Amino acid sequence: MAKSKNNKSVKDKSAKSPAKKSSKRAASAGAEPGSGAAQPPMPKFKHVEKKKLSTGKGASAAEVGASLVSLFNAGKASEVERLWHHKNIESIEGDGTVHLGRKGISEKNAWWYSSFDTHSALAEGPYVGATGFAVHFTITISPKGTEDRMTMREVGMYTVNKGKIVREEFCALAS
Amino acid sequence: MAKSKNNKSVKDKSAKSPAKKSSKRAASAGAEPGSGAAQPPMPKFKHVEKKKLSTGKGASAAEVGASLVSLFNAGKASEVERLWHHKNIESIEGDGTVHLGRKGISEKNAWWYSSFDTHSALAEGPYVGATGFAVHFTITISPKGTEDRMTMREVGMYTVNKGKIVREEFCALAS
Repeated sequence: MAKSKNNKSVKDKSAKSPAKKSSKRAASAGAEPGSGAAQPPMPKFKHVEKKKLSTGKGASAAEVGASLVSLFNAGKASEVERLWHHKNIESIEGDGTVHLGRKGISEKNAWWYSSFDTHSALAEGPYVGATGFAVHFTITISPKGTEDRMTMREVGMYTVNKGKIVREEFCALAS
Repeated sequence: MAKSKNNKSVKDKSAKSPAKKSSKRAASAGAEPGSGAAQPPMPKFKHVEKKKLSTGKGASAAEVGASLVSLFNAGKASEVERLWHHKNIESIEGDGTVHLGRKGISEKNAWWYSSFDTHSALAEGPYVGATGFAVHFTITISPKGTEDRMTMREVGMYTVNKGKIVREEFCALAS
C-alpha cells in the first residue's frame, strides 16, 4: 500500500460506511499479510479490474518465497532451481540481459561462480504479493584472485505461475 | 544476481578467457550498479534474448525511483503521482485487486487515508533493475479511532516505461 504521512491531495470523502456494504470476503482481504492486527474492511472499489490477479494452482507465492529464502540461506540455491524454476524461466539482470530457461541460468551461474568468491550471502523475506514475491539479498563477494570485497544489496522480484517461478528480475541498490 | 555461497551444482568450466572475447560494452555491463568496484567482464552468453530489455526513452528507472523515494520521505506522495504515474497505471495490492488508472489510485488513497492514521513512513532505495525498480517501505499505522499500532514492511515493485510508472505491485513481509 505504501502511503506517506502527509499526502494533502486526498479527500476523506469515500467509504462512508464501508463496513455495512462490504462482504465478508472483502473484509478479510483488507488484512495486510504480515500484520496480525485487525483492519478496517475495504469498500467495494469501482475503478478496479473485475477479476483479481493470482498465481493460480500449485504452491503459492508465499510458499515458494519462503522455500527460496530458506534454501538460499542454507547454501542450497541449486535446490531452488530444481524445485521452483519453470523450465522456460526468464532471468533478467540489471543491464537488461534476459537469460532464457534452465540453460540460460546454468550458463550465467557458471560465469558467476568462475568469476567471484562469495564470502557471505543473506536472503531476507519473502515479501509476498498477488503475482509473486520479492526477496532482499545482501551478498559480499570479491572477483577471483583479488581481495576487492564488495557488498551487493539487491532485491529479486519473482513472478510465480502455477507453483513455479516463471520470471525473476534483479534490482541493485543505487549508490 | 543473488548467488548463494555453496552452490555445488555448478561447474566452473565456462568463460575460459572472457576478457579476450567480450566487447567493451559487455565489460561495462558487467559492473553491478551500486558497487563501485571493477568486475570481471561478462562473456557472450548463448542462451539469452537477442534484444536487451530497457525502459525506453524518458526518465530512467534509476531517476524515477530516486525521485519517488525522495518525495515519499518528504511526505509528498501526491507529487509522485503527478510526476511519475502513467494515466493508465495499474496498482496491484496483495489480495490481487488491480486498481486502474489515476481514478483507481485516488479511490484507493481516499479509503486508505480515511481508514488509517500514519505515524511514520520510510522509503529505502531505489533498487534499480532493467524494467523498473523496487523500494522498501516501513510504515507504522493505526486504524482510525484506535491505538492499535502496527508496522508494515513492504516492497513496492515498479515497472517503468518511457519515463512513467505503468505498474506497481505491493508485497508485504510474510510473518
